Amino acid sequence: MSEIADSGDFVQSLARGLAVIRAFDGEHAELSLSDVARRADVPRAAARRFLRTLETLGYVRFDGKLFALTPRVLELGFSYLSALSLPEVVQPHLERLSREVDESVSAAVLDGTDIVYIARVPTRRIMSVRITIGTRFPAYATSMGRMLLAALPDAAREQAIAAAALEQLTGRTLTEPAALRAELDRVRAQGWALVDGELEPGLRSVAAPVHGRDGAVIAALNVSTSATRDTIEHLTEAHLPKLLATASAVDAELRLV
Amino acid sequence: MSEIADSGDFVQSLARGLAVIRAFDGEHAELSLSDVARRADVPRAAARRFLRTLETLGYVRFDGKLFALTPRVLELGFSYLSALSLPEVVQPHLERLSREVDESVSAAVLDGTDIVYIARVPTRRIMSVRITIGTRFPAYATSMGRMLLAALPDAAREQAIAAAALEQLTGRTLTEPAALRAELDRVRAQGWALVDGELEPGLRSVAAPVHGRDGAVIAALNVSTSATRDTIEHLTEAHLPKLLATASAVDAELRLV
Repeated sequence: MSEIADSGDFVQSLARGLAVIRAFDGEHAELSLSDVARRADVPRAAARRFLRTLETLGYVRFDGKLFALTPRVLELGFSYLSALSLPEVVQPHLERLSREVDESVSAAVLDGTDIVYIARVPTRRIMSVRITIGTRFPAYATSMGRMLLAALPDAAREQAIAAAALEQLTGRTLTEPAALRAELDRVRAQGWALVDGELEPGLRSVAAPVHGRDGAVIAALNVSTSATRDTIEHLTEAHLPKLLATASAVDAELRLV
Repeated sequence: MSEIADSGDFVQSLARGLAVIRAFDGEHAELSLSDVARRADVPRAAARRFLRTLETLGYVRFDGKLFALTPRVLELGFSYLSALSLPEVVQPHLERLSREVDESVSAAVLDGTDIVYIARVPTRRIMSVRITIGTRFPAYATSMGRMLLAALPDAAREQAIAAAALEQLTGRTLTEPAALRAELDRVRAQGWALVDGELEPGLRSVAAPVHGRDGAVIAALNVSTSATRDTIEHLTEAHLPKLLATASAVDAELRLV
């Protein structure tokens, strides 16, 4: 990026303005000018201009001391979601599935080496971090990510494995490329993925693929539970068939969209 | 805005870059360079630089012909959502309520003269337009908006009424300021709002307030149904008590956050 960043094609002030928006999050909902400058890594005078611009556009409010984002910022993220028919089709199916299995269910797409949540029906909190639409996790350590990586053409799959920082997130995480490759082969053959405590201890989930009209895998759905509540047998024998049926129903509906 | 836009404090390229992101939506998921320039109202050469910058930052992809947003754009919108504890608290309550009443339920906040959806559990589609998180409607013609306007201090309420373009959206929409003011008084006194076909013919909904720790109304919840399926009596006698109980449960939980 640095070469492009230095070229005439890169609009530095757009990049910095977006960094100012990203400076706000759950732990930093209200920030002073200095906080924003530090967190966005921009000079204070520039931060002030970006914040004033965002305020004029209605994306930021200022109470005389602290800045905060306004709901209008949602327009930006939702430009993507509304450009995608997938979340609209998926959501009612996820609602139904979560009622059937009484567990949190989600849908995600692959973005490089990460999965990104595009829909979610939470029932209870089992992860240490909060998951919302837009949350990212490393694909290699999640059931939806394994499903999406397994479905890639071989060259793209190898590229994704090479680009991923395979970290030992828990004592169980697969970090050997050869072991991961073997597991992805198995996932591709069986048509679903199970991950048991590789992203976070005690978190178990099973994922199934969603296919686009051309038959390619475009997203994954999962059911996630905790090791203390559910055995692997119950997850694969009771929940998996319902998950696969839901994925097929989504496939069928996507063919009509 | 134009005075500020002309001043040295306004970063034109940030404003234009955000307009480029907003150029994409459900009907315009993939755009050519010319499309983007036209829809964002920026010169073609500038549009190209913004798109290249967004591509470098991972927010846009280019297939050699058409541009599209990537899931990374969700980060921007979700900076706001994750800065708000409200959606996280509200979501499980909405899930429960939607199961009880078997209707779509939502939560929204006030942003100027609009309501903005921050959480939603759809059951079936009853609106002609699709509603997602981030969707905006004019507050004066919706049940959640009426609830939120009614709860404003008098001066702010008058300001919001004066600033709103009171349009006759259906044959039933209240557009007379005096009539709207009277209705808001009624809503304030009774503690909930009912709107019957004022935003869209046949759409009925009832809304209740959510209070922050200091007792101020910070959001509204609603149950929406259709005139063909539900009488007003059923909505107020069967659904409203459950909605009010849900709003109280959210209030109680917010006091603990």
